[in-house]
Amino acid sequence: MALGEFDLIAKYFSPRTRRAVLGGGDDCALLQPAPGQQLAVSTDLLLEGRHFLPTVAPELLGHKSLAVNLSDLAACGARPLAFTLALALPRLDEGFLEGFSRGLLALAVEHDCELVGGDTTAGPLAIGITVFGEVPPGQALLRSGACAGDELWVSHAADGGLGDARLALEVFRGRVALAGEAFSEVRVALERPQPRVALGLALRGVANSAIDLSDGLLGDLGHILERSGVGATLEYAALPRSRALAAQPEGVQQACLLAGGDDYELLVSAAPAQRDALQRAARDAGVALARIGRIDAEPGLRVLDAQGRPFAHGLRSFDHFAP
Amino acid sequence: MALGEFDLIAKYFSPRTRRAVLGGGDDCALLQPAPGQQLAVSTDLLLEGRHFLPTVAPELLGHKSLAVNLSDLAACGARPLAFTLALALPRLDEGFLEGFSRGLLALAVEHDCELVGGDTTAGPLAIGITVFGEVPPGQALLRSGACAGDELWVSHAADGGLGDARLALEVFRGRVALAGEAFSEVRVALERPQPRVALGLALRGVANSAIDLSDGLLGDLGHILERSGVGATLEYAALPRSRALAAQPEGVQQACLLAGGDDYELLVSAAPAQRDALQRAARDAGVALARIGRIDAEPGLRVLDAQGRPFAHGLRSFDHFAP
Repeated sequence: MALGEFDLIAKYFSPRTRRAVLGGGDDCALLQPAPGQQLAVSTDLLLEGRHFLPTVAPELLGHKSLAVNLSDLAACGARPLAFTLALALPRLDEGFLEGFSRGLLALAVEHDCELVGGDTTAGPLAIGITVFGEVPPGQALLRSGACAGDELWVSHAADGGLGDARLALEVFRGRVALAGEAFSEVRVALERPQPRVALGLALRGVANSAIDLSDGLLGDLGHILERSGVGATLEYAALPRSRALAAQPEGVQQACLLAGGDDYELLVSAAPAQRDALQRAARDAGVALARIGRIDAEPGLRVLDAQGRPFAHGLRSFDHFAP
Repeated sequence: MALGEFDLIAKYFSPRTRRAVLGGGDDCALLQPAPGQQLAVSTDLLLEGRHFLPTVAPELLGHKSLAVNLSDLAACGARPLAFTLALALPRLDEGFLEGFSRGLLALAVEHDCELVGGDTTAGPLAIGITVFGEVPPGQALLRSGACAGDELWVSHAADGGLGDARLALEVFRGRVALAGEAFSEVRVALERPQPRVALGLALRGVANSAIDLSDGLLGDLGHILERSGVGATLEYAALPRSRALAAQPEGVQQACLLAGGDDYELLVSAAPAQRDALQRAARDAGVALARIGRIDAEPGLRVLDAQGRPFAHGLRSFDHFAP
C-alpha cells in the first residue's frame, strides 16, 4: 500500500536535527546562527530532462542535487550548515525515494549539512534545494573581487579536468562515442560531482574572487569580469583536461573545456604572491589547482593558443533558454 | 527579441539588498543575522495544475507564492527577513514575468521581506520559495506546545471565514455555482490570501501552539494534536464562515470548513486566561479571532454539533498524493 505524504516525508527525509534548534515537522525549521557569522544562502531548482537524464540512478541524483548547491557555498568560502528540500514526484515510488534519499543524505553527512525542512508534492520530477552556510563577515569569496594582475586558477581532480561532465553528456546523447573505461571515468564527473567545499574554506583570505563552474568556463568567467569590472586572458593549452577528453577531436575538446557546464570546479583569481598559499590550500583540500590565465585591466575576454595567438572558438555561455 | 536568462533575472527580479549584505548576482546571498535571534526557515514548491490554476492572473500568482511561505513564518511568530525564488518557466513570457514579479514584490515590500537570490530555468511552470524570518530564542510558536485545557482559536477576515478558498476552487471546477458578487468575495480568499504575519508576532508569549491552515482544519489540527500529544474537541457551529459559504448546502459547508485547505489562517491554542490578550493581539493585527473548541487530555479529535452531539462528517485531511 502506498504511503501517504506525511509518512513518506518521515520515512525517507526525517530531518537530522543535531544542530538545528528545531527541524522538520513544524511550520518552520529554527536555526541558531553562530554569533557574528554571516549566513550564505543559495537555491537551485533541478528538473528532469533539463538538469538530469530520466535514466540517472536515484542515488546519484540525490548526491548531485545537494552537490550543486554545496558548490555554491564552496564558491563563497562558506561552511555548510543546513538545507531544505522541496520535491515534486510523479508518484510515490519507494525505490526512487530510498535511493535518492541515500545519495542525498550521504553527501549531507559528509559535509555536516543538516536537512532541516522541506515540502513534497505530486508533479513532474523536480528538486528544489536551498542551502545555508556560514562565513565570517568580510571573508566571503565574491565574484566582484578580481583585480588586474590576478592570476586565474581552476580546481580539478588529479586525474580529471574541465569538460568531462559535458563529454559524458554528449555520450549519453549519442553524439560522441567513448570506450567503456573512458566513459566510466568521465561519467563520474557528470553524475557524482564533488563540491569543492574544503578548498573554498581554505581559500578565504587567499583568493580575491571565486565562482563555481556550472554554466561553462567562458560564461562563468564572464560573470567575474562583469562583477569585477575587469578583463581576462585565458591560455587554452593550460586548461586541465582528462586523458579521455584529450583524446577527442579538437572541436569536442573546445566545446567541453570552454563551454561544457556542470563542472562544479572553483574558478578563482588571486594575486601572484599567493601562489604558495594557493598550492597549500589545494593540497590540504585534496584537489589540484591549474593556473589558466590572468585578470587584465582591459575589458573583454581573450583566449590564447599555445603560441600566444588569439584563439577563435565561437562559443558562448550556456543559456537555459537557448533554442 | 527574447531576453537571455541573466537579463531576465536582472530585469524582473533584481534583488532588493537594503538589508542583505549581498544580494543576488553572486554564488550565494549573504545575510547578517541579528545577534542572538533564531532563524526560522520554510520552503514551498508550487506547481501549475496542482497548487494553482493555469488561468490565474500572474500578479495574483506572484502574491500567493510568497503569501503561503510568509504564512509559515506567521505560524511560528517569526518576523520576515528575506526569501529566495526558484522559478521554472515554459518560456520567456515577459507579460507573465512582469505581472508575477509585481505581485510577488508588492507583498515582499509590504512585509519587509527581501528577495536575496534565486534560480531560473526552463520547464513546466513551478515556483519554489524559501523564506527566512527571525524570532527571539524560546519565543517561536510551535505545533508541539498545546496543553489540555487550552482553548482553540482561528483567525479570519471580519467578513470571511474558513473554507472560502475551497469554495472558490469548487466554483472554478464547475462543481458549485455562485452568483457574481458572492464569487468575487470568495475568490479573493483563494487568489489573494493574506498571511497573518502581524498576528503571529502579536501572539508570541500569548499562544501555546500554532499552525497555519494550508491542508484543511482537521488535518492541520491533527498535526498539533500529534506533536503535542493531546486531543481536541471542535464546535462545528463556532467555525467562522462567510455569508457566501453559509448559503451553501450543508455538505459543501462541511467540506469547505473542515477540510477545505488553502485558508492560510492561523489556528492557535491558548490558556483561557489569555482571552483578553488574544483579542488585543487580533485587534492590533486587524483580524478577527474565533474560539472554535478546546484541547483535551484525551487523545483524538471530536467534532460536536450545535447541540453538543458528536458530528459525523467522514472527512479527512488533504493529501497531495490522494487519488
